[in-house]
Amino acid sequence: MIVILKPNTSEPQVEAFSKRMEALGFKTHLSRGENTTIVGLIGDTSRLDPEKLKSEELVSDVKRVSEPYKKANRKFHTHDTVIDVRGRKFGGGFFQVIAGPCSIESAGQMELVSECVKKSGAGLLRGGAFKPRTSPYSFQGLENEGLRLLLDAGQKTGQPVVTEIMDAADIRLFEDVDIIQVGARNMQNFRLLKILGQQDKPVLLKRGLANTIEELLMSAEYIMSEGNEQVILCERGIRTFEPSTRNTLDISAVPVLKKLTHLPVIVDPSHACGVSWMVLPLSKAAIAAGADGLMVEVHNNPSQALSDGAQSLTPQAFDELMRSLRPYIELERKTIWSERQ
Amino acid sequence: MIVILKPNTSEPQVEAFSKRMEALGFKTHLSRGENTTIVGLIGDTSRLDPEKLKSEELVSDVKRVSEPYKKANRKFHTHDTVIDVRGRKFGGGFFQVIAGPCSIESAGQMELVSECVKKSGAGLLRGGAFKPRTSPYSFQGLENEGLRLLLDAGQKTGQPVVTEIMDAADIRLFEDVDIIQVGARNMQNFRLLKILGQQDKPVLLKRGLANTIEELLMSAEYIMSEGNEQVILCERGIRTFEPSTRNTLDISAVPVLKKLTHLPVIVDPSHACGVSWMVLPLSKAAIAAGADGLMVEVHNNPSQALSDGAQSLTPQAFDELMRSLRPYIELERKTIWSERQ
Amino acid sequence: MIVILKPNTSEPQVEAFSKRMEALGFKTHLSRGENTTIVGLIGDTSRLDPEKLKSEELVSDVKRVSEPYKKANRKFHTHDTVIDVRGRKFGGGFFQVIAGPCSIESAGQMELVSECVKKSGAGLLRGGAFKPRTSPYSFQGLENEGLRLLLDAGQKTGQPVVTEIMDAADIRLFEDVDIIQVGARNMQNFRLLKILGQQDKPVLLKRGLANTIEELLMSAEYIMSEGNEQVILCERGIRTFEPSTRNTLDISAVPVLKKLTHLPVIVDPSHACGVSWMVLPLSKAAIAAGADGLMVEVHNNPSQALSDGAQSLTPQAFDELMRSLRPYIELERKTIWSERQ
Amino acid sequence: MIVILKPNTSEPQVEAFSKRMEALGFKTHLSRGENTTIVGLIGDTSRLDPEKLKSEELVSDVKRVSEPYKKANRKFHTHDTVIDVRGRKFGGGFFQVIAGPCSIESAGQMELVSECVKKSGAGLLRGGAFKPRTSPYSFQGLENEGLRLLLDAGQKTGQPVVTEIMDAADIRLFEDVDIIQVGARNMQNFRLLKILGQQDKPVLLKRGLANTIEELLMSAEYIMSEGNEQVILCERGIRTFEPSTRNTLDISAVPVLKKLTHLPVIVDPSHACGVSWMVLPLSKAAIAAGADGLMVEVHNNPSQALSDGAQSLTPQAFDELMRSLRPYIELERKTIWSERQ
Repeated sequence: MIVILKPNTSEPQVEAFSKRMEALGFKTHLSRGENTTIVGLIGDTSRLDPEKLKSEELVSDVKRVSEPYKKANRKFHTHDTVIDVRGRKFGGGFFQVIAGPCSIESAGQMELVSECVKKSGAGLLRGGAFKPRTSPYSFQGLENEGLRLLLDAGQKTGQPVVTEIMDAADIRLFEDVDIIQVGARNMQNFRLLKILGQQDKPVLLKRGLANTIEELLMSAEYIMSEGNEQVILCERGIRTFEPSTRNTLDISAVPVLKKLTHLPVIVDPSHACGVSWMVLPLSKAAIAAGADGLMVEVHNNPSQALSDGAQSLTPQAFDELMRSLRPYIELERKTIWSERQ
Repeated sequence: MIVILKPNTSEPQVEAFSKRMEALGFKTHLSRGENTTIVGLIGDTSRLDPEKLKSEELVSDVKRVSEPYKKANRKFHTHDTVIDVRGRKFGGGFFQVIAGPCSIESAGQMELVSECVKKSGAGLLRGGAFKPRTSPYSFQGLENEGLRLLLDAGQKTGQPVVTEIMDAADIRLFEDVDIIQVGARNMQNFRLLKILGQQDKPVLLKRGLANTIEELLMSAEYIMSEGNEQVILCERGIRTFEPSTRNTLDISAVPVLKKLTHLPVIVDPSHACGVSWMVLPLSKAAIAAGADGLMVEVHNNPSQALSDGAQSLTPQAFDELMRSLRPYIELERKTIWSERQ
Repeated sequence: MIVILKPNTSEPQVEAFSKRMEALGFKTHLSRGENTTIVGLIGDTSRLDPEKLKSEELVSDVKRVSEPYKKANRKFHTHDTVIDVRGRKFGGGFFQVIAGPCSIESAGQMELVSECVKKSGAGLLRGGAFKPRTSPYSFQGLENEGLRLLLDAGQKTGQPVVTEIMDAADIRLFEDVDIIQVGARNMQNFRLLKILGQQDKPVLLKRGLANTIEELLMSAEYIMSEGNEQVILCERGIRTFEPSTRNTLDISAVPVLKKLTHLPVIVDPSHACGVSWMVLPLSKAAIAAGADGLMVEVHNNPSQALSDGAQSLTPQAFDELMRSLRPYIELERKTIWSERQ
Repeated sequence: MIVILKPNTSEPQVEAFSKRMEALGFKTHLSRGENTTIVGLIGDTSRLDPEKLKSEELVSDVKRVSEPYKKANRKFHTHDTVIDVRGRKFGGGFFQVIAGPCSIESAGQMELVSECVKKSGAGLLRGGAFKPRTSPYSFQGLENEGLRLLLDAGQKTGQPVVTEIMDAADIRLFEDVDIIQVGARNMQNFRLLKILGQQDKPVLLKRGLANTIEELLMSAEYIMSEGNEQVILCERGIRTFEPSTRNTLDISAVPVLKKLTHLPVIVDPSHACGVSWMVLPLSKAAIAAGADGLMVEVHNNPSQALSDGAQSLTPQAFDELMRSLRPYIELERKTIWSERQ
C-alpha cells in the first residue's frame, strides 16, 4: 500500500508516521519527491482500511498496490476452478448453459420447459420462486410452492436446478437446490453472503448494477472466507446512461475476471439487454470473450409470462440459439454438456 | 399507460389486443397515426407490468403516464408528512440533524459524542453497530454490543437513536431503537423492507448508489404498503464516472423528491463526498435545495476511527458546522430542534 | 409524437391546444384517461422539438414514437449500405480491419507498420497526425508532416489510409485521405460534421464517451443530410463507473445499431479497453456480436510509442490476432479483405 | 509520479528501468515491497504520459501524485482570480448573474429581455446565435444575424454580452463579444481552446457531459497555456443513469474546483435540470456550495421559444428568482453587481 503524504509534511512528522505504521506490523519505505513524500507499506495490508488512513491529517492519498481479495485471487490459485454440479461442470474448459423461466408459474410449465431446454443442451434448469420486484404491487413469485415445482420438474428430467435466495432466513428451504443464486440487488447483502459461505453448495453470484469488478470479487471473497469456495460469477449488465438496452452488458468484465480470478465466469444476456432478439448476438459475444457459461431465460409462452416476458425466448427459439452457439463454443475449445455424453 | 403497437399491425390485431386489455378491466382508447397505433389503457395500471406487455408480439413500446407509487405520492397526499420521533420532527417545516460516528466503538466514545452533538444542536444520535463493509476482512461493527452502547448513550443524554439494520432476522434487536436505517446497499432488499413495513417505528431509507428516484419511492412504497407510513428518505450520493468525490451528491433529487412525495427528505453529505472538508458546503447546499434534515458523521477522534474516518468531523468541527448552518435553515424558514425548546 | 397533458386540463384548453397543433400541420388524436389526456400528433414530427413542447404550460410530458433520424434509418433503407474504399468494403457481409499506430512518428515506422499489417490482413492503414490530447503539454501529433508520412506509406504499400480530422478548417489537407475519422470528442462538433457532409469521401464516425446510440445516429444524420451518405459508425467504449478498463465497451451497441441503421458498424477494441492483452477477446466479441470491422492499434515498438502505447499491439501480436480472428469472421459468413484476392 | 513495477521484476531490470528514467531527466527513488517494487519519479512529470509508461513491459501501473495542470492550479496561485468584464466581476468575493434566452430570436426579444434582466440584477446578457443541436433538422440559431442582435441589445442597455462559439473559424465574428462561451460539447475541442487562448478576452468554459473535473481543468489549461488566463469555469450537469432530470448537477464540483483552482466557478442550473421550476432550488444550492455566479435562461415567452423553452424563466419569474437569491448571496458575504452601484 502506498501512502502519499501532504506537501510540506515535516521530517519529524514523516518519522512519527512511519513509526506508527511499523508499530502496526508493516515495514515502511520512504520516497521523497520535490513536493511529496511517499510511504510504502510492506506486509499484509488486506486488513488495513485505506479510508481510515486517508483521514490521517498528514495523508493526502492512499493507493493499493495489491488486490484486497485473496481466496478469489488467481495469483494464489493459478489453475481454473472447476465447479461440478452433478456432472454439469463450469470452468476449466467446460461450458454450461442454465435455462428456464424468470418466474415459476405451474408444474406443467416447469416440466415442459425443463424437458425442452434439456433436449436443446441446457445442463441446468433455472426458475424464480422468490422474485425481487421493484414494485410491491407486482407478482412476487410463488415462493415455497414455486420452489417445490422447480425441484419436482428438475427431478423428473434429471436436471440440476438453480434458483435465487432473497433472505438468509430462507436458507433451509434451499437444501435440495443445486446452485443458490444471489441476485444483483443482493450482491452486497453481506449477511446473506456469509450464510452462503457456510453451506456446502455452489453459489451463483450476480454482479450488482453499479458494482465494480473488484466489489464483485470482494463479495465472492465473503462467501469463500467462510469456507465455501464454490462460487460462480455472473456478469449481467451494469447501469449506464444508455437507454436503448435495459442495462449495458460489460463484456470486458469477462476477460478481466478471467485474468483476476480462478472462478468460473458466466453471462446472463437476457437481463443485460431486456429483449429476446438480442440474446443471440450477446451470447455469441460472451462465448467469444471467454465466458464459461450462459444463463438464458426461456418461457413456454413469453407474452403470458408473469415477469420479464420481453426478454424470454420460446423453447423453439432457445433450440435455435443453442444450435447457433455450438460452433462458437467449439472454436473456444470448450466442452459443453450434452445428454448424449 | 400507453401501449405503442408495432408499425403495420392489422386492424383485426388491434381489435383483438384491445379486447384482451378490456377483459383485464381497462378501458382502452385508440389513436391511429400514419405508421403507428397507440392504445391508451385507462384504469389502475399500477398492478400491470410494462415488461410483460412489451413481450407481446404486437407491442413496440409501453410508457407509463402515472407514477407507479401511491402511498408515497404527493398527488394523493398533498400535505407534508411530519415524522415525530420523541419530539424531534422531520418535514413540514421542521429541520432535523442526526449526528454521530460511522461505527460504534466504546461506551466512552458514544457518551462523549452524544453529549457534544446534542449541545451543538443535533436532535438525534446515530452510530453503526452492524456495518456493511465491502471486505470480509474489515471491521464489521460491534453488533449486539454496539447496539447496547448506542442505546445506553442515547438514554443518558436523552437523544433518540438511529442505527442501521442489515438483516430482517435482527428485527427484535431493534425494539428500542428510535429510527431504523436501511443502508444504500439494502435499498432493494425487499424482504427487509416488508418486515420494516410491519413495525410501528420510523424508517430512514437511503437511496442506493445506482438507484433512480422512482426506485427509491417504490422502496418507500414497499414499507408503506405494509402499513408503516413513517418513512424518511435520504439522498447520499450516486455512482458516476467522476473520481474526485466518493459518490456524486444528486442535489436535484431533493427538489424532485419534495415535488413527487409528501415524505421528509434528508441528505447525508458525509457519505456522498467521503471527505470532511466538503461536509460544510454540501450541507449548506442541501438546506438551500430544500432538505428537511441532515445526517452527519461525527467522531471524537477521526484519524483513529474504525471506519470512514476520512469523512468524519470532530465534535468541535461539528459545532462550527451547526453554527454556520443555522442562518441557512432560518432563511428557509424551517424550525430546527434545540435543547432549549 | 405523444403529448401527455397535465391532469385537470380543461376541455377548452385541450381543444385550443389541439387546434394549435393542427395549425402547425399535424393531425391530432385525443385519448382521454381518468386523470390524463393524451394528444397524438400525426405527421412529420422530426422537425418538432420535444423540449419546446414540454415548456407549454399544459404539457406534462412528450414522447417520441418514431426515430428522429431518417437517412440513417433502416426503416427507410432496408438493405445494408456497403462502403467501398478502393476495393476495401465495409458492410453488407464484408468485414474490414483498419490497423496502424495511434500517432504517426516517422517514415520508417509508417512503412514498416503498413507493410506488416497489410500482410496480416488489414485492409486499411490508420495513423494519427492531429492528436486530441487531454493535456496541452502532451505530444499533439506531427500534424501536416504526419499526414504526409501517412499518405506516403499508404501509397508505397497500396493501402488506403484513415486519419482523424480535428477542425473543419483543415479539410483541404485531407484531400488525399481515403477515410476521414471523427474522434469521440468531436462526435457533436456539428460544424465539422456539416463540412464532412459536403465531401465525397467516407467518414468514420466514433461514438462519444457519453453519447447515446441515438445521438450517434443523429450525428451520422448531420453528415448524411448534407449529401454524404458514406458513414461508417464506430463503437469505442463509453464512460461508466467501472475503473478496471479505460472505457466500457458497449457491445450491445453493435446489434442495436445494426437493427436501427443500414450503415456499417465497426468496433475499436484498443481504445475501449486501453490495454493490449484485451484486444483479442474484445475483437472476437465484436465479430460475434455482428460488427462489420475492427480498428486496431499496432505499433512497431509499443513501449516507445509517443501516445497510447499501452493499448498497442506489436506487428507480430497483430499477426497472431488476425489468425485468431479469421475463424470467427468465417463463422459469421463475412468476407474479409485479403491481399491474395 | 509513481511507477509500480510488475511482481518478480528482476533487480537488473529495475536498475535498467531507473537508468532510463534518469536519462529522461528525473530523479528516481526505489521502494521495494514483498511482491512489488515501486519507482518514484521526481521532477516535472507534467510532460510525461502515464499511458506511455504503462505500456512498458515491466510496468504494472502508474499513478500521478501531483496535478497535471499548472496555470490553473491554486497551489501555484493561491489568491482567487477576479475577472472583470467592463465592471462586472467574477470571483474573489464577487458574484455575477448572466441571464438571457437560449436562442436569440429577434431584436425586440433581446432588448426586452436585456432590459428586464438588467433591472432584476443580472450583470451580463446571454443569448445563443450559433446553437449546437443534436438534430440537423432543429433550428440552428440565427448565426451572424443573431450575434448582431445580441450586440445591439447589449449596447442599448449597457450590458456586456456572453455567447457561444462553435468553431475556431468564426473567431473574428466574436470581436465585440465580451465573454466567449465554450459549450459542453466543445470542452475538448482542443483547436478551439488554443485559438481562444490567443485572444485577450474572458472565456466561459462549460464542463462536458461526461468530463471529469480534472479534464475541465486541463481544458482551462489549454486556454491559459496559450496566454489567456481569463477563464471562468461552469458546472452544468453531468450525464448519469437518473432520468428525472436532464442532467445531474454535480454540486460537489463547486467546492472541489474552488479548492483546486483560483479561477471563478459558476453554475448553469437551467441546463442541468432542464425544467424551469427547479432553477430556484438549484440556484440557491449553487450559491450555498460556493459558486461565484450563475447562468440562467430567461425568455420573454418560454412556450414560444425556438429552443430549450422548458427550462426558461419568464422575466417576472427571473425577477422573483433574483429577489429570493439575494439573501443567500449575502450570507456568503459576496458582492453582487447592481445597477445602482
